[in-house]
Amino acid sequence: MNGAKALVETLANCGVELCLANPGTSEMHLVEGLDQVPRMRSVLALFEGVCTGAADGYGRMAGKPAATLLHLGPGLANGIANLHNARKAGTPIINLVGNHPQFHIGYDAPLTSDIDTLARNFSSWIKSCSTADTLARDGAEAWTAAMRATPGSQGRISTLILGADAAWGDSPGPAPGNPAPLRPRVSNEAVEQTARALQGGEKTVLILEQQGCSPEAMELASRIQSKTGVRLMTGTFPARVDSGAGAPQAERMPYFPEHILASFEGVQHLVLVGGQTPASFFAYRDTPSRLVPESCQVHTLARTEEDAVDALTRLAEAADASQSPVRRIEKSIPERPEGPLDNRSLTQAIASTLPDQAIVCTDSGAGNGMFPYCQGANPHSWLSLTGGSIGQGGPVSTGAALACPDRPVLALLGDGGAGYTIQCLWTQAREQLNVTTVIFANRVYNILSVEYARLGVTDVGEIAASLFDIGNPEMDWTAIAKGMGVPSAKADTAEELTALLERSYQEPGPFLIQANY
Amino acid sequence: MNGAKALVETLANCGVELCLANPGTSEMHLVEGLDQVPRMRSVLALFEGVCTGAADGYGRMAGKPAATLLHLGPGLANGIANLHNARKAGTPIINLVGNHPQFHIGYDAPLTSDIDTLARNFSSWIKSCSTADTLARDGAEAWTAAMRATPGSQGRISTLILGADAAWGDSPGPAPGNPAPLRPRVSNEAVEQTARALQGGEKTVLILEQQGCSPEAMELASRIQSKTGVRLMTGTFPARVDSGAGAPQAERMPYFPEHILASFEGVQHLVLVGGQTPASFFAYRDTPSRLVPESCQVHTLARTEEDAVDALTRLAEAADASQSPVRRIEKSIPERPEGPLDNRSLTQAIASTLPDQAIVCTDSGAGNGMFPYCQGANPHSWLSLTGGSIGQGGPVSTGAALACPDRPVLALLGDGGAGYTIQCLWTQAREQLNVTTVIFANRVYNILSVEYARLGVTDVGEIAASLFDIGNPEMDWTAIAKGMGVPSAKADTAEELTALLERSYQEPGPFLIQANY
Repeated sequence: MNGAKALVETLANCGVELCLANPGTSEMHLVEGLDQVPRMRSVLALFEGVCTGAADGYGRMAGKPAATLLHLGPGLANGIANLHNARKAGTPIINLVGNHPQFHIGYDAPLTSDIDTLARNFSSWIKSCSTADTLARDGAEAWTAAMRATPGSQGRISTLILGADAAWGDSPGPAPGNPAPLRPRVSNEAVEQTARALQGGEKTVLILEQQGCSPEAMELASRIQSKTGVRLMTGTFPARVDSGAGAPQAERMPYFPEHILASFEGVQHLVLVGGQTPASFFAYRDTPSRLVPESCQVHTLARTEEDAVDALTRLAEAADASQSPVRRIEKSIPERPEGPLDNRSLTQAIASTLPDQAIVCTDSGAGNGMFPYCQGANPHSWLSLTGGSIGQGGPVSTGAALACPDRPVLALLGDGGAGYTIQCLWTQAREQLNVTTVIFANRVYNILSVEYARLGVTDVGEIAASLFDIGNPEMDWTAIAKGMGVPSAKADTAEELTALLERSYQEPGPFLIQANY
Repeated sequence: MNGAKALVETLANCGVELCLANPGTSEMHLVEGLDQVPRMRSVLALFEGVCTGAADGYGRMAGKPAATLLHLGPGLANGIANLHNARKAGTPIINLVGNHPQFHIGYDAPLTSDIDTLARNFSSWIKSCSTADTLARDGAEAWTAAMRATPGSQGRISTLILGADAAWGDSPGPAPGNPAPLRPRVSNEAVEQTARALQGGEKTVLILEQQGCSPEAMELASRIQSKTGVRLMTGTFPARVDSGAGAPQAERMPYFPEHILASFEGVQHLVLVGGQTPASFFAYRDTPSRLVPESCQVHTLARTEEDAVDALTRLAEAADASQSPVRRIEKSIPERPEGPLDNRSLTQAIASTLPDQAIVCTDSGAGNGMFPYCQGANPHSWLSLTGGSIGQGGPVSTGAALACPDRPVLALLGDGGAGYTIQCLWTQAREQLNVTTVIFANRVYNILSVEYARLGVTDVGEIAASLFDIGNPEMDWTAIAKGMGVPSAKADTAEELTALLERSYQEPGPFLIQANY
């Protein structure tokens, strides 16, 4: 057995079930390995950013890593933007990156480049010196590293850069699957410090992020809220929140720094549960980066890598809140909208038709803005843009549908973001995934117009305006979708949009709706 | 004046005329700078790989750098694959990458990442600590670095990573343009050593790459050939060769290692002019990486960064060949093809209709294979895939058309490669560029089928076959083109293809032809 097959067998032994692939010549032995190990599902994408974004969506829903198969430095590079988002989401991923054998590197062949320096941007584990002898064990290590949250980092991405000789050489055979590592427990001191803050009666907010906003953590936090009156707040862009009617109530942190600071007015204690001190998304000339009121103390109940559920369990016990009620969101489905499409009717259309157990994926301002209005809708999972790099929502929706084939998936994309990784549609068509994509076609990088105005520029010149304008020429997203094998239609009114959404949810396979407004 | 405007003014002072942009919030002051300096043309792309690939095409034709404007680490990452190709092409490029101010980095905001480690993959010059005070001078330095070939590297890419505070802070004003640095002259010894090899009467090949295959260098090499009988050979994938009827004759290095070695049979001396020792594109188990026959000596007349034209001038003098005739390619335009489309009729269709002064850009096997058959066609420039990362031909054609608005541009793309960076069509429509794109729609990653067979696998399993198969679903490239504002049509016969090509060459603006075969 060669190294490649032993590696694929090992990853399958660990529990990896999916490989998102865009292979090249240096990965041919890995392709042969995948061919021989059908319990690992191989899914092809036309662009590596689709592979990595889909691995992100898969990992957020499955709670374990998919593998990606990428072609040397450039193949990896094409996947980095969505690996960046996945790193910020704390999603486990295992990248398999083919490389020349070491003996070939010195000849500076066309595809030779320093792959390690690329991998350093987003990986918490890198190995690039495997031999055929070590490759299977290295695969098991990559899995363990991806399943373990790294101290001081949100990242859970392993990158195994393997020379073709490690793949084609003789292997001693597959390694057994490693056990999943446990999260470290927080100290008693951390629990007691938070408990004291809660008991002091001063205004306190629990900031729930990563594992701290998992369903189990949210239930515990809600009990603590019932008992102590503490406020609960998720981050601005949580990797995943299971929400909708019946889910625990929580606020969501706003986006702009001045709004975040306003939401903390009078707050004396911020308690971090799985995340970091609130900071501005971007830096501005006259706004602080650290968004904590002057007299407010910041406590850490659980760091990103620690066991936030255990910490909240112990905090609930310390606060005598273990049996306190959970404050659940009441069902409140908005009326079906009528008339022209605008922000309000778009939101109503999405919320009023949202099917039970939907997975909502969005990397657009419009999509993100719908989150609070969907809180009373049917129970759903909401996956946000965690790293700020648009072109993530479509690939993430693809991966979420691969992880959860029985759940309807809804991708809410801006026309700006959709332009980066639209190739995800082809993989959705190929795998007949139940993804409904809505493109908010406002023909502008709208956030940039907003941010440009924040500079104080009142007179937007022709060149600046042209750099925000994606309506010249107008994109026909329905034509692009059909070109990639996805049926599609345009909606110009709220009635058309709701009808198309419902049709798409009922029919199997992908569908794209261009919402013109 | 703020740093951003001073930087844009400085780059314009240096002679930079084009900025290929995909900006974000951290680049808003640079957008304002571009708005205020209209002598720098700003062109928007929907994806950063289009910006960088277009900068590559522009640089190859203009001989000087375009700027790119990219949004932090992820924006740069999306551009790296084509920057990799540009590095291997020796194309000068200046990347402007926005970043958070240093004071904001420590807060690990969503878009924070280590940008330097990404830039190291392809840059020969990096600066990431500019202040408003130094930013303009740093821009001038970036220009000088891009105009200078770096010893020991093909790369001529400068990456200026600038914090938003350097852009918004007060600047002392623009810097004057730096003079373009001169290439170093080769030693007399290098010329004499080559002259001795030529005079010895043993079989010798001049390998002409980079500046060594510029029109001026090729003329000189051809005179030396007339006098001495030396063989002339360009690399397998030259960044740019000006070819066609009337151009100096030269062979082209084959692709597969066994074919390269066969072409060197009996050769005693390989002389490198602007390039490196021939090496296999990929490593194989039973094939050497270094492709030099056992008894053959390798001489270096001019290293990549040295002045190959001066070296050939001196070599011609030493060989008494300065007045020898140039062996020019005779005009030989093939018959117009008829009947079904296959490799032969496709090639005939392209060669027989190729317009005078066309710029041919290709990153596909089919396109590359047409090069020898176009040698007798009308004079043209041929831009190859230098770094092996597909998804380059479309963006390069976009940039070539921006550099040479009066020349017809022809992009010969595989359907595999076109899937990576198809967003280039939108920029072509927006700028009404004269680009004719031909998609060779064979619905397969064909090179991978070939390479898989080279492993010795005769029984291709279902999973492996699926990873090469891009025909499920079939892509409709004409629909995708129309969706991005580019008119398009399908060709199923040779007659249809030639008619569509000629129509496209006559009409202004872009056009896409899907060639089904």
